[in-house]
Amino acid sequence: MKENLKKYLTEMIGTFFLVLTIACTGLLGANGVIAPLAIGAALMVMVYAGGHISGGHYNPAVSLAACIRGALSFKQFIPYALVQIIGAVLAVIIFGIMAKGTIIVIEPANFGLKGLLIAEFLFTFALCYTVLQTATTKNTAGNSYYGLAIGFIVLVGAFSVGGTLCAGAFNPAVAVAAGMLKLAPWALILFTILANLVAGICAAIAFKMTYTEPNE
Amino acid sequence: MKENLKKYLTEMIGTFFLVLTIACTGLLGANGVIAPLAIGAALMVMVYAGGHISGGHYNPAVSLAACIRGALSFKQFIPYALVQIIGAVLAVIIFGIMAKGTIIVIEPANFGLKGLLIAEFLFTFALCYTVLQTATTKNTAGNSYYGLAIGFIVLVGAFSVGGTLCAGAFNPAVAVAAGMLKLAPWALILFTILANLVAGICAAIAFKMTYTEPNE
Amino acid sequence: MKENLKKYLTEMIGTFFLVLTIACTGLLGANGVIAPLAIGAALMVMVYAGGHISGGHYNPAVSLAACIRGALSFKQFIPYALVQIIGAVLAVIIFGIMAKGTIIVIEPANFGLKGLLIAEFLFTFALCYTVLQTATTKNTAGNSYYGLAIGFIVLVGAFSVGGTLCAGAFNPAVAVAAGMLKLAPWALILFTILANLVAGICAAIAFKMTYTEPNE
Amino acid sequence: MKENLKKYLTEMIGTFFLVLTIACTGLLGANGVIAPLAIGAALMVMVYAGGHISGGHYNPAVSLAACIRGALSFKQFIPYALVQIIGAVLAVIIFGIMAKGTIIVIEPANFGLKGLLIAEFLFTFALCYTVLQTATTKNTAGNSYYGLAIGFIVLVGAFSVGGTLCAGAFNPAVAVAAGMLKLAPWALILFTILANLVAGICAAIAFKMTYTEPNE
Repeated sequence: MKENLKKYLTEMIGTFFLVLTIACTGLLGANGVIAPLAIGAALMVMVYAGGHISGGHYNPAVSLAACIRGALSFKQFIPYALVQIIGAVLAVIIFGIMAKGTIIVIEPANFGLKGLLIAEFLFTFALCYTVLQTATTKNTAGNSYYGLAIGFIVLVGAFSVGGTLCAGAFNPAVAVAAGMLKLAPWALILFTILANLVAGICAAIAFKMTYTEPNE
Repeated sequence: MKENLKKYLTEMIGTFFLVLTIACTGLLGANGVIAPLAIGAALMVMVYAGGHISGGHYNPAVSLAACIRGALSFKQFIPYALVQIIGAVLAVIIFGIMAKGTIIVIEPANFGLKGLLIAEFLFTFALCYTVLQTATTKNTAGNSYYGLAIGFIVLVGAFSVGGTLCAGAFNPAVAVAAGMLKLAPWALILFTILANLVAGICAAIAFKMTYTEPNE
Repeated sequence: MKENLKKYLTEMIGTFFLVLTIACTGLLGANGVIAPLAIGAALMVMVYAGGHISGGHYNPAVSLAACIRGALSFKQFIPYALVQIIGAVLAVIIFGIMAKGTIIVIEPANFGLKGLLIAEFLFTFALCYTVLQTATTKNTAGNSYYGLAIGFIVLVGAFSVGGTLCAGAFNPAVAVAAGMLKLAPWALILFTILANLVAGICAAIAFKMTYTEPNE
Repeated sequence: MKENLKKYLTEMIGTFFLVLTIACTGLLGANGVIAPLAIGAALMVMVYAGGHISGGHYNPAVSLAACIRGALSFKQFIPYALVQIIGAVLAVIIFGIMAKGTIIVIEPANFGLKGLLIAEFLFTFALCYTVLQTATTKNTAGNSYYGLAIGFIVLVGAFSVGGTLCAGAFNPAVAVAAGMLKLAPWALILFTILANLVAGICAAIAFKMTYTEPNE
């Protein structure tokens, strides 16, 4: 139990800093190159800082994929998703206190539903596939690149489709925060979360279709 | 056979996301710093995500170099190149569906033939040389940097000559996609593919001239 | 004693180049993307260049966190902090000599106190937490990513809050240099240093709440 | 002898691509963020691609520092420096052929001598110090970060002082190329080379003052 609490705290801290970075770079006037770079880097750092404790998911879609792959027990999915969302919400609240008076209000983008669903699906798929391949297999155990790969696929997704076709959440906890921050309208957030979770499931299937554990 | 299918699927997924990133950052209005950064990062991530399964080529020129070096059997060249091209074509098609109405039509650049041939040759050479040196030798086995090196040489090439002297494909499968996306005229795509394949051959020769396996 | 002197010299060299980079990218007219990228990279490089000798702190808040965690003896805190500040001051002096006539005078930003305290606290916390998790534990021993994680959390912080809510020091030695360079008014520097040190203490506590050494 | 030829060819190839990247990003109209990023990445990639063969210096100042440190025999200094310069000159020539008609002629910057000498000295020192600490010691043997650290200290230097206080060569072979490319006047190139070599010597001394081999 005590070890589980450590995992939950780690997941909360990591999601907190991921979402704090999103809020700061999204709402304090940074130019278009900065947000994806900072967000990808924040995820990379937090994966390295907490991966050895909790797996470093910070993302319910990743936790779902990890459950299907067998890297996380299914009964851990709800607590993981919950502390991830709590970390995200806390980040939005603290951001509001910290940046009061400095926040640049932006009009929530109104993305087309078809493009949003496909874009959120594809890059969340890529994210979860990357997590499973680089951070949960015997054949890549002990590598030092998993955080770089995981953080930078979010950078790739944010540069590719974030802000043009979708909010670029690739993460239900981030989607909730994006709704609170008015980075996207709530109606689209629900579709974003749906696309993210379906992508996590599909990525776990794709992982099983491509990877063979050495002793199998 | 089953293991081969896993390799083909891995090559298809990786090439798909590489080309999807090229399409998104090339045709959705991103500024000039973003595309090379995102494309290099996408390749890096996919090399880390699939390298332990298929070698993580995502590029017929790299597969050709790997065959000559002895890291891939020659009879695998055609299926590898085929699934790479299929992944690239699928990415173009899915991109078209996803981004319909958002795509910013750009005039295909008309590069000079001499500059294009040299530029595509040189940076494809650098890419294939980097793959062979960092991902196929006993002396560097177990390293965690191969994906970083491989992805970032494409970033270097794209920043150096992409868009000014050539399309910056460095990859026949990407060249096909660039033609479909109208990033370069078809007449030049054929020369691009030729330059890429010749570079793969020359890189394998340069590798053999510089590297000595420890037991030789 | 001789080994201690080696550590002090290493800490001084590293902090020198970190602060030199801050001075150059802050006062020679570089655009807004460059400074955070260069500063994060400078810290990363110096952590890799000196981590095996002194731990590669270059930051009194990190040294304080390392003392509380048990990775540095408490009697080393004062000499570490001292040589770090000396390195920072030297960098400001050498920068003044080197760049005389080229320096672009900028108005020191006048940040709100509440935002500054929270922002400096949060990202210094993230920095110290990252150092303790990636560079002082048995479970991550021998990894090659600690410098990347440590350098890039400073990049994240600088992109997120540096220049908008605070100077983005996350480091008392850097704060002193920022005061000397007139990047922030001296009155705020003292609050910055306070926030940094409190963050170091809290990060050490958070580390102990999340990490379990394997033999415990 | 045959092994030496392999080393020379490796040094030539690496310096060739480093200088080719400098020429392309410096003279084909890239904006100010791109060149330092591409150049640092090019060096990183080539260090990873050739480090296991020749040490991956691509820089006479680094080779000099390596000789003093005992990582390269002194009789190898002249051939190393020679092939590095040949690689650099070849890159300038090939660039001229490849990019004829596309090159944007720029006025060679006229830097102040004092600033240039200090700036070239300091960042070449940082580069050589980083090479010796990360790529030649028993305490860091087998790490995967040396190329990242070495490439990115050049990125840091280029962002910090390149183009404002000096050409940002940090490398006599690059300085020769910069003179040929008219990126800086020849009179200043000689001072650049002098500052680079003195920095290599001082970095070797600083290395010996900070590092202790485990068995000493």
